[in-house]
Amino acid sequence: MSDINAALNYAREHREASLEDLKALLRIPSISTLSEHRSDVQRAAEWIAERLKALGFEAVDVMPTKGHPVVYGEWMNAGADAPTILFYGHYDVQPADPLDLWESDPFDPQVRGDDIFARGASDMKGQIVAHLRAVEALIRTSGLPINLKYMIEGEEEIGSPNLGDFIAEHKDLLACDLCLNGDSGILAPDMPSIVYALRGLAYFEIHVQGPASDLHSGVFGGAVDNPAQVLCELIAGMRDENGRITLPGFYDDVRPLSEEERAELARLPQSDEWWLKQTGAPALFGEEGYTALERATARPTLDVNGILSGFTGEGAKTVLPAKAMAKISMRLVPDQRPERVHEALRAYLETHAPPTVTWELKYITGCLPAIVERDSEAVQAASRALAAVWGKPPLFTRQGGSVPVVGIIKELLDVDSLMLGFGLPDDNLHAPNEKFHLPNFFRGIETYIRFMCELAS
Amino acid sequence: MSDINAALNYAREHREASLEDLKALLRIPSISTLSEHRSDVQRAAEWIAERLKALGFEAVDVMPTKGHPVVYGEWMNAGADAPTILFYGHYDVQPADPLDLWESDPFDPQVRGDDIFARGASDMKGQIVAHLRAVEALIRTSGLPINLKYMIEGEEEIGSPNLGDFIAEHKDLLACDLCLNGDSGILAPDMPSIVYALRGLAYFEIHVQGPASDLHSGVFGGAVDNPAQVLCELIAGMRDENGRITLPGFYDDVRPLSEEERAELARLPQSDEWWLKQTGAPALFGEEGYTALERATARPTLDVNGILSGFTGEGAKTVLPAKAMAKISMRLVPDQRPERVHEALRAYLETHAPPTVTWELKYITGCLPAIVERDSEAVQAASRALAAVWGKPPLFTRQGGSVPVVGIIKELLDVDSLMLGFGLPDDNLHAPNEKFHLPNFFRGIETYIRFMCELAS
Repeated sequence: MSDINAALNYAREHREASLEDLKALLRIPSISTLSEHRSDVQRAAEWIAERLKALGFEAVDVMPTKGHPVVYGEWMNAGADAPTILFYGHYDVQPADPLDLWESDPFDPQVRGDDIFARGASDMKGQIVAHLRAVEALIRTSGLPINLKYMIEGEEEIGSPNLGDFIAEHKDLLACDLCLNGDSGILAPDMPSIVYALRGLAYFEIHVQGPASDLHSGVFGGAVDNPAQVLCELIAGMRDENGRITLPGFYDDVRPLSEEERAELARLPQSDEWWLKQTGAPALFGEEGYTALERATARPTLDVNGILSGFTGEGAKTVLPAKAMAKISMRLVPDQRPERVHEALRAYLETHAPPTVTWELKYITGCLPAIVERDSEAVQAASRALAAVWGKPPLFTRQGGSVPVVGIIKELLDVDSLMLGFGLPDDNLHAPNEKFHLPNFFRGIETYIRFMCELAS
Repeated sequence: MSDINAALNYAREHREASLEDLKALLRIPSISTLSEHRSDVQRAAEWIAERLKALGFEAVDVMPTKGHPVVYGEWMNAGADAPTILFYGHYDVQPADPLDLWESDPFDPQVRGDDIFARGASDMKGQIVAHLRAVEALIRTSGLPINLKYMIEGEEEIGSPNLGDFIAEHKDLLACDLCLNGDSGILAPDMPSIVYALRGLAYFEIHVQGPASDLHSGVFGGAVDNPAQVLCELIAGMRDENGRITLPGFYDDVRPLSEEERAELARLPQSDEWWLKQTGAPALFGEEGYTALERATARPTLDVNGILSGFTGEGAKTVLPAKAMAKISMRLVPDQRPERVHEALRAYLETHAPPTVTWELKYITGCLPAIVERDSEAVQAASRALAAVWGKPPLFTRQGGSVPVVGIIKELLDVDSLMLGFGLPDDNLHAPNEKFHLPNFFRGIETYIRFMCELAS
């Protein structure tokens, strides 16, 4: 334990430096979906590579893909008997808009109270820097007791379109016993938890075209159909009054929740009131017969992520728009698959789109849902690490969000992924005023130190 | 008739100068709804005032309002026995977006074939310049046989919010026997027509708010309602499968079409095939039991003019939006009133909006529908003028669009408005590639010359 204590003490004595590292990475607006930020994305990759080199990692490289690069680096000095862990993370972030709702510049990190506010703070630069600082604490004191590889990608927020190819092309380089995935969180600042299941994703655009060009709504209104109205009707028909999704066969592949699992989920502290408070919605809504927690983590959903048609500026433009567009995505649960719900959505549109418009359905991105084993050695090591840092055993929970790489890594490298991160449900992920809770950041560093030592013992 | 011929000859000999005048006015981007174009709007007003001064008009003034100014000028030399005509027009135009669909710069007028392409060409700078050129032709030859006042406003495209106050404050100045309203059109290049009825307008914004801020659709999707989905459902419910608007009491004030009027409308050349060709829509759609012409001119409608929620840029942002907005407008027919359909829409939302969102309904602008007398002296004079220029008698038709000032002038000045303009149904009003048919422009100048002489005879 003296080894661990030296590293823990190092981490505690260097908290200010850890915070400065975090701020430095957060200042880089590495928005992967916007082409004008391509050089910023590259810069974030290089920042991480420089840190790995400074720590003495070998084979450090910013490796190109068809899109944004992957940062790789390895520390293989723990010996052949020690386990080899692949740390996965992503250095890219979501767009920051709507900018006017941010209380401070999304790329000028500000500490207010116990939180640091910036785009990417919780999702997931905070975890990347926490792990780098944990590694530093061990290397500078007792030494790193495991073999460690880093694979930090730059396209998670756009669905990791090139990561599968990258992993397939570098199977030997990436070979490992376990993937440690930091893109995760815990239930509350004083409530450590481990995520054992993730939802998948299928993301679409629907384009509806009515007249050949925008028309004057006075001259032509009434004679032809309105594509915005048609799109609204199509979307309205995608769910029924009980919150069930009406696409044909949508629920066919859904693995039902067992009574045992529902009872276990019911022990978690996320009551319906908790969801109401977290979201600020006037009332909860969802699939009849399930709690809000079940709906948001263990049941599939369909959401409008965006919709646009016609004139949306200031004032009154009396236009009958030629076209309308919606971005619609579904969260999937085991054993649904993106290509199957794609078929369901297409079948729905083929049945319900009226002959007064033409339409196009585009599949944008998606990923499989996943469930990881709860009784594995890795989960048990993480459980002990969390318990030691927080002083209480972790809870086991499911995550509503998607981590595409988990399915890809299982398929290509044949290893499980352990989700171990320190975000909070109210961190405003993908939204204005994203934050990271600094006490979690510092506990996260200590948890990663303990977890790596537990794995080696 | 020698008087008329001198003026007609003058007009024919100066067609090039007329076209240059039109281009000069079209080059000014007088978009009334966009505050960044305020100085352009002012510039358009001053351009017209300068032309009136050059023609020898008196009391020429660019008169301020709370919004954009009104151009006034008068020629009162025809004597007390001659009629006094108020020429109404508007020098403001609609926004030009979406810019990428224009084949040439909307504010750099280009002649291609028989048409001139520019924003505002048909709606309605073409008519303003045509009338100015008709007046010039008479003044430079036989003299203007009527007393004439100009009232050219700059806020028609935003619903003329200050024109009512302006007219009320200047009733004596504007006193007249008839209003000549140039904001109109004919059925086809070889088919002169006179509009005897106009639809009204009621334009709204609906704002729906769900969660307090944008949420991650993975973390929260399923637990709370989606305001974009809710807005789609509300809009979908506003009409039934037969194209009837479902707002409570919406049709209560609608004056039914008589069998005689339906028979008369059926004689017009706008078959359902014509509407299909004009719009380029895959199929027609509208209220069951009516022809497309009836639906677009003599029946009320409800259209989505714009809708916006969430992320609408490139790529995939997995956001559950906090809010959604739609611009929705209704075209009204006699004897509907904007305030009555406003009540109907509010009642609908109160009944149908779910408790999972909050909502706000904003009335943006509106105007009364109108019907003008077909057997009046003015309509007969216009009929003779059109017949002489085109060589055939005009048809009588209803217009689907709205001209708010017609109702305002009837109420405040107690005179009818004669609609006499030369736009075409395919002029792309309010849409990309707006155009004006140049043969109509030149015939329009001659028609205005003949109309003013007919009124004086």
